[in-house]
Amino acid sequence: MAQNGCEHSERVLTMDTMNPNVKRVEYAVRGPIVQRAVQIERELNMGIKKPFTEVIKANIGDCHAMGQKPITFFRQVLALCSYPDLLEDSKFPEDAKSRARRILQAISQGIEMIRQDVARYIERRDGGITCDPDNIYLSTGASDGIVTMLKLLVSGEGVSRTGVMISIPQYPLYSAALADLGAVQISYYLDEDNCWSLDINELRRALQEAKKHCSPQALCIINPGNPTGQVQSRQCIEDVIRFAAAEKLFLMADEVYQDNVYAEGSKFHSFKKVLFEMGPEYSEKVELASFHSTSKCYMGECGFRGGYMEVINLDPEVKFQLTKLVSVRLCPPVPGQALLDVVVNPPQPDEPSYDTFIKERTDTLATLAEKASMTQEILNQVPGIKCNPVQGAMYTFPREGTSSRYVLLYEASGRKRHLFGSWQMTILPPVEKLKIVLAKIKEFHQHFVEQYS
Amino acid sequence: MAQNGCEHSERVLTMDTMNPNVKRVEYAVRGPIVQRAVQIERELNMGIKKPFTEVIKANIGDCHAMGQKPITFFRQVLALCSYPDLLEDSKFPEDAKSRARRILQAISQGIEMIRQDVARYIERRDGGITCDPDNIYLSTGASDGIVTMLKLLVSGEGVSRTGVMISIPQYPLYSAALADLGAVQISYYLDEDNCWSLDINELRRALQEAKKHCSPQALCIINPGNPTGQVQSRQCIEDVIRFAAAEKLFLMADEVYQDNVYAEGSKFHSFKKVLFEMGPEYSEKVELASFHSTSKCYMGECGFRGGYMEVINLDPEVKFQLTKLVSVRLCPPVPGQALLDVVVNPPQPDEPSYDTFIKERTDTLATLAEKASMTQEILNQVPGIKCNPVQGAMYTFPREGTSSRYVLLYEASGRKRHLFGSWQMTILPPVEKLKIVLAKIKEFHQHFVEQYS
Repeated sequence: MAQNGCEHSERVLTMDTMNPNVKRVEYAVRGPIVQRAVQIERELNMGIKKPFTEVIKANIGDCHAMGQKPITFFRQVLALCSYPDLLEDSKFPEDAKSRARRILQAISQGIEMIRQDVARYIERRDGGITCDPDNIYLSTGASDGIVTMLKLLVSGEGVSRTGVMISIPQYPLYSAALADLGAVQISYYLDEDNCWSLDINELRRALQEAKKHCSPQALCIINPGNPTGQVQSRQCIEDVIRFAAAEKLFLMADEVYQDNVYAEGSKFHSFKKVLFEMGPEYSEKVELASFHSTSKCYMGECGFRGGYMEVINLDPEVKFQLTKLVSVRLCPPVPGQALLDVVVNPPQPDEPSYDTFIKERTDTLATLAEKASMTQEILNQVPGIKCNPVQGAMYTFPREGTSSRYVLLYEASGRKRHLFGSWQMTILPPVEKLKIVLAKIKEFHQHFVEQYS
Repeated sequence: MAQNGCEHSERVLTMDTMNPNVKRVEYAVRGPIVQRAVQIERELNMGIKKPFTEVIKANIGDCHAMGQKPITFFRQVLALCSYPDLLEDSKFPEDAKSRARRILQAISQGIEMIRQDVARYIERRDGGITCDPDNIYLSTGASDGIVTMLKLLVSGEGVSRTGVMISIPQYPLYSAALADLGAVQISYYLDEDNCWSLDINELRRALQEAKKHCSPQALCIINPGNPTGQVQSRQCIEDVIRFAAAEKLFLMADEVYQDNVYAEGSKFHSFKKVLFEMGPEYSEKVELASFHSTSKCYMGECGFRGGYMEVINLDPEVKFQLTKLVSVRLCPPVPGQALLDVVVNPPQPDEPSYDTFIKERTDTLATLAEKASMTQEILNQVPGIKCNPVQGAMYTFPREGTSSRYVLLYEASGRKRHLFGSWQMTILPPVEKLKIVLAKIKEFHQHFVEQYS
C-alpha cells in the first residue's frame, strides 16, 4: 500500500512502515471530542459568539482542572522539598517541615523509606495484614505500573498469544496498552441492570470464548469502577479470587479510587485484604498486582504522576526481571514520590496540620458524595435517561433510552448513536457548573425526543 | 522447560511464560555492581570495618546525588508553583514569581505555552532557524521520548525486522529499549584512537553487515557522547546527515549534554541547525528527532523527569499516531514541565535573579570543566592507563592497557577482564572526592601491575 510517486513514499517512517500495533491503539480521553472542545474554548476566548458562553469539561478525572483545591499540607511539603531554604521560614508548620526533612534525607539515600512508608500504609488499610516493602514498586502514576505488569505478561504467538480479561465499559488505558503490546483483549461485560456489578458467569463466558483463539493469562479489575462508578461487594471480590485461582489467572486490581466510596452500604475492600482473609489456599497461591496513585481520591494530584504497585506471590526470578525493567526507565518523578510519601504518611492527631488536613479531606470527599447523588438524581428525573447510583469513583455512565425506540429515534435524526446512547461523565465540575451541565443534558434530551418522536 | 512438580510451575507468570523480550533487556546502570555498592554503604553505616571508609559513586550522571547544587532560581519557581500561597511572600524575587504565575496560568489552560517557550529556546540556540511548537513533544525525561520514537519505528519480521544503529560504547537505554521492543541492534564502534570520534566508514561497514539480516531504519547519535565524552565536529555531523539521507535512515539525535562542552576548540552543533544549514536538499527530506532533558547540563535535575523532543519532517499521519501514543500515558509530570519551562526561559539581564543565575550556571559548568581536565590528566599519568580528553558530557571512558600484555595479566590474575579493561566513570563527584577516586584507581592499577608482572 505504499503511495509510490508521492512525496510521502520518500520518508523512512510512514503509515506503511510504522509499528502496526501503534495503529491499533485507541484512546478517546484525548481524542477528537476533547480537541474540538479546546478549539471551541479558544474561539470563545477570542470573542466569537456561540449559542453558549463556556465549555464545562466533564470528560476526565482531573480533579484540580475541575476546580477542586489541592490539600494544603501536601503542597507545603512539596514546596519545602523543592526549595529547602524554606525550612527556615516560620510560616510553614513544623510537621510539614519534618516530613520534608525526612524526604530530603531519604532521597539522598535512595528512596527505600518511601516504600517502607507505603507498606505501613497498606498494613493500616488492611487491618494489619503484613506488607513487605520489597513487594512495593513506585511508579509514574498507576498507568505506568499497569503497563509494566501487562508487558511482563505478554508472550506467545497465534493461539498461544497472551489474552487479558478487561471489563467493558473500560478505562481506555487497558485496551490501548493491550493493542500496543499486541496482546489479545478479552472483554467481559459489566451488568448495567445490576448497578454495573461484575457477574462471575459473564467472566466464565468470556474466558471460554477466548480460549479458542488465545491463551488467557490475566484478569484486570477496576474497583471502585471507572467509568461506571460501582463498588464491588466483599462477596464479589471473593468470587473473583476463586475464579482466578481456579482458572489460573494473574489478578490485576486497579484500586486508585479506594477512598472514593459514597453510597450507603458500600465499602472499599482491597483485593489484598480479601485474598489474605480467604486463607493460605488462596493467599499463598494467587498472583496479584494492585495499583494505587496520587491522582485520584481526595488528593487529585494528577500532574505529579505518583503511584505504586504491590505484587503478591510473584515468582522471585520474575521479580528480578521486573526490577530490571523498571530500572531502565530510571526512577519515577521524585516530586511524585515525595507526594506519595505524604499521602501514605499524613498529619497525625498530635500534629499542628492535622485539623486542617482532616477538614480539607472530609470536605473534598463530602462534596464528591454530594455531586454523586445529585448527578444520579437529576439524570433519573429525565424520562428516557437511566442512571445507576454512583457508588464510588468519580464517574457516572448513564444511558439514553431503555428500549429500541431510542435507537430508531437516533437513526431518524441522522446522529451517530454511539455518541449519545451511553456516555461517561465525571462528577468533578464544581456543584454550580455540574448543575448547568445536567440541566443542558436534560434540555437537549427532551428537545431531541420531542423533535424526532 | 516448565519445572513440573515444583511450586513455581503453579504460577501463571514464570520465567517460561514471561514476555521473552524482557529477559533480553540488559541494564547495567542499576545492576549488580550498584546493588553491591549500596550494600557496602549500608554495612559501613552500621559500623562494619572495611579497608576503606566511604563509597564514592562514580557510576551515574546524577549531578545532585554527587553533591552539585541545584540552581536557586529553578527551585524557587518550583516551590512557588507547588504552593502558590508563597506568591505573597516577599522573600521570593519578582522574576521567580512572574514565571510561577505564568506557569500556573498555563497549566490551567493545558501547557501549550511550554511548547512555545521550548520552540523559542531552540530558535535562539540555532541562530534563528524556525522551530514550530507543533513539532515539540514534552516527555518524561529524554529516555521516554527516545523509547517512544523507537516504538514507532519498529515493525516487520525476520529479515524485514527493523534494525537500529547505535554507537558502542553506548548508553544502555538504547540496547535495553531495542531488546524490549524486539528490534535488531546494529552496533557501530566509535574510534577510541581518535578521541572516540564517529567514523563514517564504520557506519557503512555496520550498515552493510546488518542489511543481511534486518531492515535498517534508524541511526542513533549521542552528542556530546555518553559514555565517551566526545563532542562531534560540524563536519562529522554533516557527514552523518549525508549518510542518513543516502541510506534512508531516520536520525535520532540524543543531545541532552548540549551545554556540557569543555575542550578548547570543541563546540556543540545541533543536528537541527546543521541539517537546515545544509539546504533544502537535506532539510526538507531527512527525518530527525532530537532529544533534550532537564537532567543534565548545568541543571542536573534528574529527579523531575522533564524533557522534550523535536521532530522534523515527520509524516503528518505518523505525527497524529505519535500524539495519540503519548496521550495514552497521560502527561509527563507537571513539575518537570514547569522546570523545563524555566530552563528554556531563564532570568534575563534586566531581571533581579539574573546575576545569581549566571553565577551559578557559570560556576557549575566551570567546575565540571575543571574536573574533566583533572580526570584526564591524572589518569594519563598512570603508566598503562589511556584516557581520551573529556571534550564534553560528564564521563570518561579510560582503558587499562594498550597492548595484549594487560590482557594476559588479567588472565593471570583470574579477574574478569570486562570489569577492568575499559570502564565508564563520571566526573561528577566533588573535586576532593574525585581526587580520592582517581588516586585509588592509580594505586590499584600500579599494585595490580606489580603483583602480576
